[in-house]
Amino acid sequence: MANTDSVNVRVLSLNCWGIRYLSKHCPQRYAMIGDMLCREEHDIVLLQEVWSEKDYLSLKKKLACCHPHSHYFKSGVIGSGLAIFSKHRIHDTFLFRYSLNGYPYMAHHGDWFGGKAVGMAVLSIGSLTTNVYVTHLHAEYCRDKDSYLPHRVVQAWELQQFIRHTSAGADVVILGGDLNMHPQDLGNRLLRSYTGLKDSYLETAKFDGCEDGITLIADNPFINKKELCPFEKGIRIDYILFKGSPKTDIYCDFMSTTNGSVPDHPFPYSDHEALTAGFRLETHTPTETGSDRQPKNQDSAAVMSSVKVAELVDIVTEARTEVKVGLHCAERMRYTATRTGVMGLALLFLELAIAAVPWLALGAEQPFPRTSFYLLAALCFAILLTTFLLYIFYTMELKSLQGAEDQMRLAVGSLQEKLRGFPLAQPHSTQRRPPEGHEPSAFDPEE
Amino acid sequence: MANTDSVNVRVLSLNCWGIRYLSKHCPQRYAMIGDMLCREEHDIVLLQEVWSEKDYLSLKKKLACCHPHSHYFKSGVIGSGLAIFSKHRIHDTFLFRYSLNGYPYMAHHGDWFGGKAVGMAVLSIGSLTTNVYVTHLHAEYCRDKDSYLPHRVVQAWELQQFIRHTSAGADVVILGGDLNMHPQDLGNRLLRSYTGLKDSYLETAKFDGCEDGITLIADNPFINKKELCPFEKGIRIDYILFKGSPKTDIYCDFMSTTNGSVPDHPFPYSDHEALTAGFRLETHTPTETGSDRQPKNQDSAAVMSSVKVAELVDIVTEARTEVKVGLHCAERMRYTATRTGVMGLALLFLELAIAAVPWLALGAEQPFPRTSFYLLAALCFAILLTTFLLYIFYTMELKSLQGAEDQMRLAVGSLQEKLRGFPLAQPHSTQRRPPEGHEPSAFDPEE
Repeated sequence: MANTDSVNVRVLSLNCWGIRYLSKHCPQRYAMIGDMLCREEHDIVLLQEVWSEKDYLSLKKKLACCHPHSHYFKSGVIGSGLAIFSKHRIHDTFLFRYSLNGYPYMAHHGDWFGGKAVGMAVLSIGSLTTNVYVTHLHAEYCRDKDSYLPHRVVQAWELQQFIRHTSAGADVVILGGDLNMHPQDLGNRLLRSYTGLKDSYLETAKFDGCEDGITLIADNPFINKKELCPFEKGIRIDYILFKGSPKTDIYCDFMSTTNGSVPDHPFPYSDHEALTAGFRLETHTPTETGSDRQPKNQDSAAVMSSVKVAELVDIVTEARTEVKVGLHCAERMRYTATRTGVMGLALLFLELAIAAVPWLALGAEQPFPRTSFYLLAALCFAILLTTFLLYIFYTMELKSLQGAEDQMRLAVGSLQEKLRGFPLAQPHSTQRRPPEGHEPSAFDPEE
Repeated sequence: MANTDSVNVRVLSLNCWGIRYLSKHCPQRYAMIGDMLCREEHDIVLLQEVWSEKDYLSLKKKLACCHPHSHYFKSGVIGSGLAIFSKHRIHDTFLFRYSLNGYPYMAHHGDWFGGKAVGMAVLSIGSLTTNVYVTHLHAEYCRDKDSYLPHRVVQAWELQQFIRHTSAGADVVILGGDLNMHPQDLGNRLLRSYTGLKDSYLETAKFDGCEDGITLIADNPFINKKELCPFEKGIRIDYILFKGSPKTDIYCDFMSTTNGSVPDHPFPYSDHEALTAGFRLETHTPTETGSDRQPKNQDSAAVMSSVKVAELVDIVTEARTEVKVGLHCAERMRYTATRTGVMGLALLFLELAIAAVPWLALGAEQPFPRTSFYLLAALCFAILLTTFLLYIFYTMELKSLQGAEDQMRLAVGSLQEKLRGFPLAQPHSTQRRPPEGHEPSAFDPEE
C-alpha cells in the first residue's frame, strides 16, 4: 500500500526534585543527571521541577554537545520548572498555564507558586513534525481526602484540550511528565481517552524497570514510606504518552525506569524514577489510497468507535461531577470569607462606637485603653484585607471551575450527539436536520 | 482542476461596553443589540465586554431561535467578557488566558480584573471545520506614554501563537474582536504576518460604513472626543480577520460598520461600532492534484516567501525590543518595591529600638507616645505587606515577559535559519547538516 521509512527516537522524562537548598543533595544530583544525559544521548529529554533557572543553564552548558537545542518554560513566581533538551532543532515553543493550581496560602505545598503549566515544543525529526509536550500537574498530598482533586481534574481537562487542539498539524505527539495521577485516576482516563494518547508502559514490547512500572518507589531513599501508604511498593504517576497520525505510525519498542539507585553513587537521581522510552516512527510515503487514510486529526473523538465515545461521555460526566464538587467547596470558602469580612467590619464599627460615646459626652474620660483600641483596630483591618483578597481569589477560582464545567457540558452534548449516530440531529428525537445545520435546534446543552 | 462548493457566512463583532451600572444606558443598549441580532440573523456573532453573565443569559434567551448555539467564556474576577452566538453547532470551545494583563492596583483601568483572554470555538459550517476566535486585548489609555504596550505586545504574541497552533486542523479561521491596536501597530503586524490572517476591511470587495473603517468614532455620543486626540475622526481598533486553508478559499464579499447612530433610537449600540463581514467560502472537492496543494498549515511561516520571512524577522525583533523595555520597567518596579520594603523593615526596627531603650533602662518613663507608636507600627506592617505582594506580582510579570522574550528569540533564530535557505544549516556558515539533524549545532539562539 505504501513505502515506509523508519526512525528511532529515545525519550527521557524525569522529575528532578530540584528545589535549591531544600531538596537533598540537589547540586550533586544535578551533576549526576547531567552526566547520565551526556552519556545516554537521548533524542528528547523532558525535565520537571527544575525550579532554578541557574540549574537549567548549567545543564544547558553541560549538554551543549549532545543536546544543542533546549528551552526552559517560565511561569508563575518561581517558574514552571519545565525544561526540554533536544538533539533536534526546536522550531517553536508555546506555554499554556493551567487556570487552577492550588492556593497561594498553602505555601508549604508550594504548587501555586510553581505556576504549573504544559510546555509545547515543535521539533523536526527527519521530515516529521513532532509536537513534544512536558507537564507537571498539582501534587496529591492526601489520597483519601484530596482537596486538590477538582484542580487536578481541571488541569487534566485543559491538558487534553491543549494537546488535542494544538496537535492537528503534527505527525507525532509525545507527552512526558509527572501527572501526579495513578494510571486509572479520572484525570488520566480523561486525558488518554480524549486525546487518543497511548501509555508507553502499557504499549511497550519490552520493559525493564520497577515492578508495575512504578515511578515513586518505596526503595528510593528520598521517599517517606509512610506517605506512600497504602501502596506499599510505590505508585506510578510519571508517564510518557504518545500517538502517531494518519501519515506516521509510532511503536514503543522498549521502555525502562531507574530503580531507586544509581551504580557507583550513594543516592538516586531524584525522588522520582527516570523513564526512558524507545519509539520507532514509521512514515508512509503517501500513495493514492494511503494519503487520506483517516479523517483530519483535530478531534480525536471524530474517529472513535461508538463504544469509545460512550466511555468518553461517562468519563467527562464523572469529571464534571468532580468539578461541581470543587465549585461547591469554592462557593463555601467564598461565603466563609465574606462572612468573616462582614464580622471584621462589624467589629470595627462596634469599636468605633464604643470609643465615640465618651468622646461625644464631652470631657468624659476615655474608658477604652489605647493599646487595646489600636490592637483591635489593626486586627479588624487585617481581617478586612485578608478576606477581601480571599474573596477575589475564590471568585477567580469559581470562574475557572465554572468555565471548565461549561466546556465539559458542551463536550458531553456534542459527544452524545455523535453517539446517537444522527449528526446534527435533535436529541430526544430521531428527526434529522439537513447537514447545513441552519435551522434552530431545540437542544440546549444546559441543564 | 477541482470542483468548488460555495457557502456564505455573515459574521458580526461588537464590543458591547457592558459594565452594569457604570456604562450608560446599558440595559437599553443590550435590548437594542438583541433586537438587531434577532433581525439580522448573522451566522456568527462575536461579542466583547459582556461583563455580566446575566446579560449574556438574557441575550441567549432572546436569541434562542436565531442563534441556538452559544458560549460565554469565563475568566479572571469579573469574566473575560467574551461571548459567541452561532447558527451552527459549536462542537468544542477552548480558552487561553493571556499571561499579562495590566496591574491589579490600576483598579480604575480595570483590565486586570477582566482576565483578558482569547476564546476559541470549533464550528461545522456545512462540511467545513471552522475555528472562530474572539478576543479583547488590553486597552490603550495614553498613546504617547503607553505603559501597557509591552503587555499588549505579549498578548498579541500569545494570540498569534494560540491561533497558529490551534488552527492546523481548521478549514477556515475567523477572528473577531477589539484588539485595541491601530492597523499598523506592532502587535497587529505581528498577528497578521505570523498567522497569515487577512483584514476584512482591507480585503473586502464592497465597504459600507465609517470613513477609513474606523470603529471608535468621534461622532459617537458615548465617546469623549478629547481622548481620541490627535485622531480627530476616530480610530480603527476592532477587526474581523480571516484565512482559508489548502482545502478552502475564503473571500470577503462585503463589509460594513455602524456609524455612531441607530435609526429610531436616541443612542448607538455601544461606544464602539459594530462590524459585519460577509464571507464566501469555496471548497475544493479534492482531486489528485488538488488534495495536496500546499504543505501542512501548522506553521504559516513554512509557506511564506523569503521577503515575508525577512519582514517577520524584523517585526518579531521589534516586538522583542518592546518586551525588553517592559522587562526593564518591571525590574525597576520590583527593585523599588524591594527597597521600599527594606525601608519599612528598617523603620520598624528603629521604632522598636527607640521603644526598647527606656524599657531596658528599667523604670525610666516611656518617651514614645503610644498613639504614635501604634500608628507607626501599623504603617510599617502595611508597607511590608504591600511591598511583599507587589514583589510577588512583579516577579510573575518578569517571568511572563522573560518567557515571551525567550520564545521570540527562538522564533527569530528559526526564521533566520529558514531565511538563509539552508534548512538546519549552521548559522554564520554555509556548512550543511544532514536532514536527520543528529549532529550537535554550534548555533545558540541566545545572545
